[in-house]
Amino acid sequence: MKISHIEHLGIAVNSIEEALPYYENVLGLKCYNIETVEDQKVRTAFLKVGDTKIELLEATGPESTIAKFIENRGQGVHHVAFAVEDGVDQALAEAESKGIRLIDKAPRKGAESLNIAFFHPKSTQGVLTELCEAKIGS
Amino acid sequence: MKISHIEHLGIAVNSIEEALPYYENVLGLKCYNIETVEDQKVRTAFLKVGDTKIELLEATGPESTIAKFIENRGQGVHHVAFAVEDGVDQALAEAESKGIRLIDKAPRKGAESLNIAFFHPKSTQGVLTELCEAKIGS
Repeated sequence: MKISHIEHLGIAVNSIEEALPYYENVLGLKCYNIETVEDQKVRTAFLKVGDTKIELLEATGPESTIAKFIENRGQGVHHVAFAVEDGVDQALAEAESKGIRLIDKAPRKGAESLNIAFFHPKSTQGVLTELCEAKIGS
Repeated sequence: MKISHIEHLGIAVNSIEEALPYYENVLGLKCYNIETVEDQKVRTAFLKVGDTKIELLEATGPESTIAKFIENRGQGVHHVAFAVEDGVDQALAEAESKGIRLIDKAPRKGAESLNIAFFHPKSTQGVLTELCEAKIGS
């Protein structure tokens, strides 16, 4: 597959309101969007840094995967997302043929209606890994 | 402080030899350097992805911080390093004045003799955070 860059870094936090002052006032990054994704039970805040984004992830309920992640491991980096240039479906097929365990057997729609899919961390030395369709013109 | 980009992502692995086939043969990234930093008891492998690097970290002995990290949390993302444009010493002073707990009170020399310093994860919502002097011309 052809990866162009790290699309974003997902970071699990207890509270976006508590985390943002560190990212904005200390690191000097700028939050340009906060939204709730109800079906995934997360609230997200995005900040741009170089060609990558930081996605702060806050659980909207105790059954959220983010709540479970924090319960097990504490706050911290939750996943790494790579932008793929040659299509998420093709990248998934290639990865599966090379023995990677897939969480998503087929791409699903993520933010901005772009295709995304996750590899299982058991196949990736513990790093929950997301593939994202590269945005045209980005 | 002025952060230009994520300089690298440090990922703790049991074995660089076991991890590299995933990064090179599945993700298609290229490892351009492997070296051992004896005083930190780590062996590192670097791969470039966009304007960021992935730094795989393998312990060279059981007393390595990487060995202890893996023992406590398993393999996974160990730290996030930001490139600062206005000097690591100035960035440290600014962060400390804003209440950030520093692991390094003063910059020390990292790879390529550039200044680096770490924030304590207690001040950064669980993300061990490194500041790196931006390399001139990079």
